[in-house]
Amino acid sequence: MSGSGLRVALVGATGAVGTEMLRQLRKRSFPAAATVPFASERSAGRKLEGATEPVRALTEGAEVSGFDVALFSAGATRSRAWAPLFRDAGAVVVDNSSAFRMDPDVPLVVSEVNPEALDGHAGIVANPNCTTMACMLPLKALDTAFGLREMVATSFQAAGGAGQQGIDELQGQFGALLDEPGLLVTDGARAAAKATPSVHARTLALNVVPLLGTLDEEGYSDEERKLVNESRKILALPELRVSPTCVRVPVMVGHSIELRASFADRVDAASARAAMEGFPGLVLDDVPTPLEYAGRDEVAVGRIRSDIGDPRALNLFVVGDNLLKGAALNTVQIAEVLHARGLLGSRARAA
Amino acid sequence: MSGSGLRVALVGATGAVGTEMLRQLRKRSFPAAATVPFASERSAGRKLEGATEPVRALTEGAEVSGFDVALFSAGATRSRAWAPLFRDAGAVVVDNSSAFRMDPDVPLVVSEVNPEALDGHAGIVANPNCTTMACMLPLKALDTAFGLREMVATSFQAAGGAGQQGIDELQGQFGALLDEPGLLVTDGARAAAKATPSVHARTLALNVVPLLGTLDEEGYSDEERKLVNESRKILALPELRVSPTCVRVPVMVGHSIELRASFADRVDAASARAAMEGFPGLVLDDVPTPLEYAGRDEVAVGRIRSDIGDPRALNLFVVGDNLLKGAALNTVQIAEVLHARGLLGSRARAA
Repeated sequence: MSGSGLRVALVGATGAVGTEMLRQLRKRSFPAAATVPFASERSAGRKLEGATEPVRALTEGAEVSGFDVALFSAGATRSRAWAPLFRDAGAVVVDNSSAFRMDPDVPLVVSEVNPEALDGHAGIVANPNCTTMACMLPLKALDTAFGLREMVATSFQAAGGAGQQGIDELQGQFGALLDEPGLLVTDGARAAAKATPSVHARTLALNVVPLLGTLDEEGYSDEERKLVNESRKILALPELRVSPTCVRVPVMVGHSIELRASFADRVDAASARAAMEGFPGLVLDDVPTPLEYAGRDEVAVGRIRSDIGDPRALNLFVVGDNLLKGAALNTVQIAEVLHARGLLGSRARAA
Repeated sequence: MSGSGLRVALVGATGAVGTEMLRQLRKRSFPAAATVPFASERSAGRKLEGATEPVRALTEGAEVSGFDVALFSAGATRSRAWAPLFRDAGAVVVDNSSAFRMDPDVPLVVSEVNPEALDGHAGIVANPNCTTMACMLPLKALDTAFGLREMVATSFQAAGGAGQQGIDELQGQFGALLDEPGLLVTDGARAAAKATPSVHARTLALNVVPLLGTLDEEGYSDEERKLVNESRKILALPELRVSPTCVRVPVMVGHSIELRASFADRVDAASARAAMEGFPGLVLDDVPTPLEYAGRDEVAVGRIRSDIGDPRALNLFVVGDNLLKGAALNTVQIAEVLHARGLLGSRARAA
């Protein structure tokens, strides 16, 4: 094993997030001596730009030892099956799925928000849900200054949150719908029937779909529960009240979230702006839009308004690229922090 | 003047809402003896389907007398100039613009919600803003049952809220953006620059734009202020707390609003459903989407959830066609109620 660089496994390397992780590792000059991609059997042997070896098949008997860090983005089922194996073989796993996020032994980390949580890791670290991620940057800054008590969060989530297939489905629907634009006004249900969905819950092009994932008995979606539970864990506010609504919108990449946040202390737009200004990874923009932040590392916050009537509340609009800060970028940033704090590699070297 | 039917003036008859008003008058068999369209000079003489005379130019000296009712949808400036003239000549004006909505002498009416407000009219009645309109049906039902105290409202407003030009601008942007889909992921700002906006505040196709209209000193848009002030007036709840955020989405027609509503009494999803079931003009739909309600008269409410943690709050998602119940339909319904209550025509007949 190289003494001068890290050996990185990338599990789910051919997906949208995996591809972006590879790009981020190079772009950020991550100190990798080797970057080894893993994917399903049908991709085995493929050469990926930035990888130092061809794709290895993630099948029984795959060699999982010899890594300092393993970045996972292959879905919760594969994470549950494979992450413990990579960990037991000496790697620290940074997992982008929901598999371990709520495990009390697994730090759930936004690199600028709660990096200290990494210190107690036991070999697996979780990367938050993309929508939660974007909210955490402004909310951490505001919580520090004013004491966050409650948030009403309404998301506008891009098709890309459902992976490349989510993007492809949206893109493929425009032709049929725009072909007969009058129908979009006079009989939208008939227009929708021309582009039936399989990835998204309803036709997404020229529409808004207030359902992501499946509903529990109380009528909340799993996506909405993630926003509640992950926010509480990342901000270390177990009593935080969250009213979540997650909505899919016809945007390719880039999630937006409208937040009404309530605090212990008095707050106004000017003091909120001052509290968020300069927070790492966060930019202030009067009217941020997801399209304009697609491809950008920063999360943007704008439309910052003192509440009408409640001197302890604020309204704000947050935008972030769900593939970058919402997924691949934060995963790589976690690996960077682990490395900087000396929390990587010791197991691998000891192996 | 005919004794057996009403004489109707339609001001702004060639616009998107005006065209729909003409259609609604016929569809609903409004008892009109004559329907006289008014529009700008360049449309003068045009014959419109359903009108009983060619378009009259709305220019100085135009004949404004002889009408029982005048339906206006020609923008606030024209309403301010012309509505008093039609009224003084004997018509009851039902105005779809924002010009008179907050005038204490002008009833602001959603036909199923507060028709009783029409009884005190002084010749001008206002039709609410389209976003406010859709919210009023479920909120009236819930207020009656549980006592509404606060709402956090986040809108998803269609391009058609900005008229036909808003629809045209959105439709025209897809070609340039979908032509190079990779750019939507890697450099959205450059993609947006390929379709610069003039009607909407930012490029709207494949985007979400959290700004409608202009901002006041506190950072709220006029669209957001309408939601606050009109809701208070229609529901007769002057102390109602409203946190509004209005966002434009790439949908042709059909507004959606996510509401977190808080009440004086305890509430849950089941009792809320029971309270809204059967409210006129309102349907319950688990996952309502704006595209599927485009062209439909009903407002739909769904995603009804007991709040997580607050036994006096609810989350719900409301959808409605902004050209129908949000504008033309409600205007015609107001005229119907005025007629049914004997509040139309007397002035005209006395003239």
